[in-house]
Amino acid sequence: MSLTLVIANKAYSSWSFRPWIVMRHFEIAFKEITIPMAQETTRTDMLRYAPTGKCPSLHDGDITIWDSLAIIEYLAESFPEKAIWPRDKAARAQARSLSAEMHSGFVNLRSLLPMNMRRPPAKRALTPEAAADLERLESAFATAQQAFGQGGPFLMGAFSAVDAMFAPVVNRLHVYDVAVSAPTKAYMEAVMALPAWRDWETDARAESWIIDKYEGP
Amino acid sequence: MSLTLVIANKAYSSWSFRPWIVMRHFEIAFKEITIPMAQETTRTDMLRYAPTGKCPSLHDGDITIWDSLAIIEYLAESFPEKAIWPRDKAARAQARSLSAEMHSGFVNLRSLLPMNMRRPPAKRALTPEAAADLERLESAFATAQQAFGQGGPFLMGAFSAVDAMFAPVVNRLHVYDVAVSAPTKAYMEAVMALPAWRDWETDARAESWIIDKYEGP
Ligand SMILES: N[C@@H](CCC(=O)N[C@@H](CS)C(=O)NCC(=O)O)C(=O)O
Ligand SMILES: N[C@@H](CCC(=O)N[C@@H](CS)C(=O)NCC(=O)O)C(=O)O
Repeated sequence: MSLTLVIANKAYSSWSFRPWIVMRHFEIAFKEITIPMAQETTRTDMLRYAPTGKCPSLHDGDITIWDSLAIIEYLAESFPEKAIWPRDKAARAQARSLSAEMHSGFVNLRSLLPMNMRRPPAKRALTPEAAADLERLESAFATAQQAFGQGGPFLMGAFSAVDAMFAPVVNRLHVYDVAVSAPTKAYMEAVMALPAWRDWETDARAESWIIDKYEGP
Repeated sequence: MSLTLVIANKAYSSWSFRPWIVMRHFEIAFKEITIPMAQETTRTDMLRYAPTGKCPSLHDGDITIWDSLAIIEYLAESFPEKAIWPRDKAARAQARSLSAEMHSGFVNLRSLLPMNMRRPPAKRALTPEAAADLERLESAFATAQQAFGQGGPFLMGAFSAVDAMFAPVVNRLHVYDVAVSAPTKAYMEAVMALPAWRDWETDARAESWIIDKYEGP
């Protein structure tokens, strides 16, 4: 199996970060190709790899999987010996529900606070809509950890795909200095201490592309 | 296994339709509870079943799965004898990519043309953004059918979860009388001829709730 993951900027691409951190954390070997966003050739370059013209996409020989969540399902199927989803059926059902909720939701929080791996922490005020997303987020974290979080600091105990789906939100809460509960803070620290997280951050800091719309106050 | 699916109005709830048509088509027994949208008690009622306050949700004893796509994954795992996802690995990867793309995409087409199972077909003009979504949609259908559609009229040949994810869009193309290619038309006809589709439509016609924002010109 020879896997290539095509991603956008590590500084900014939240959707790319999700499958990447799964692959790195679970020690799945892959080649990586980066296509920077907001360049003249971005769309043409991205369309060469994925019919949506977006990143991420995973390439396994002739098979192309576009979309972060579909990639994660493909990895979970391809590496059954790794607990990419939790082994327990109820935990897995909850992990998939939360992952799908993130995949199509939390839109206000996401658009107000773009992921930015290089930003020094500095407060940005929440709109009421983003505050409502945050409330749901913290409640979802608390419910998951109470039900399934005994075996470790992550949402389902050990690190799994659901933590990957929420990794970009951990960055957002951190760099926009959002006020969160103590358990959320502890969760964020566990995620940001992962070697795979630190590797991504190091690579992001080494990038030279600056995209203004993802920077700002 | 005793399953309950909580859904919103059959006339309008596109997300509810997806897991419902999977369960009905694959002859999975379930109890169903309908919570109509846009009523005074909607939010309270929905929150009793799902932490997001949205439909659909699936209930299997103590386990709650919210979100259409997570429900479909749960069903696929629970009934491995049914080919809810295609059996072929490459077909399944493409089906999951398309399903995830629908889950978070085609936003302009979806918001311009709300699903409406009772609407007599009548043209609604597309915005340029919705037209771009349509172009991507038809290209995705064509690619899937060329690669995997030999064994039947659906995207991957036989009916599978990816057709369920696109079932509401088939209704939209039909009732807003959108100009489509001959292969898309043939695909729509196959989907609308499914017994499970017809059952849902019959139930939708029997509903009395009218929600103005989903009606209109
Ligand atoms: N639903 C997709 C979203 C992918 C997406 O929106 N990717 C962004 C980067 S984070 C992109 O490629 N945008 C294209 C561009 O900026 O040109 C997924 O989960 O993979
Ligand atoms: N991403 C969710 C979306 C669910 C959703 O938005 N459901 C709508 C009905 S189609 C809903 O319950 N809206 C709440 C309301 O209208 O009060 C899924 O795939 O299940």
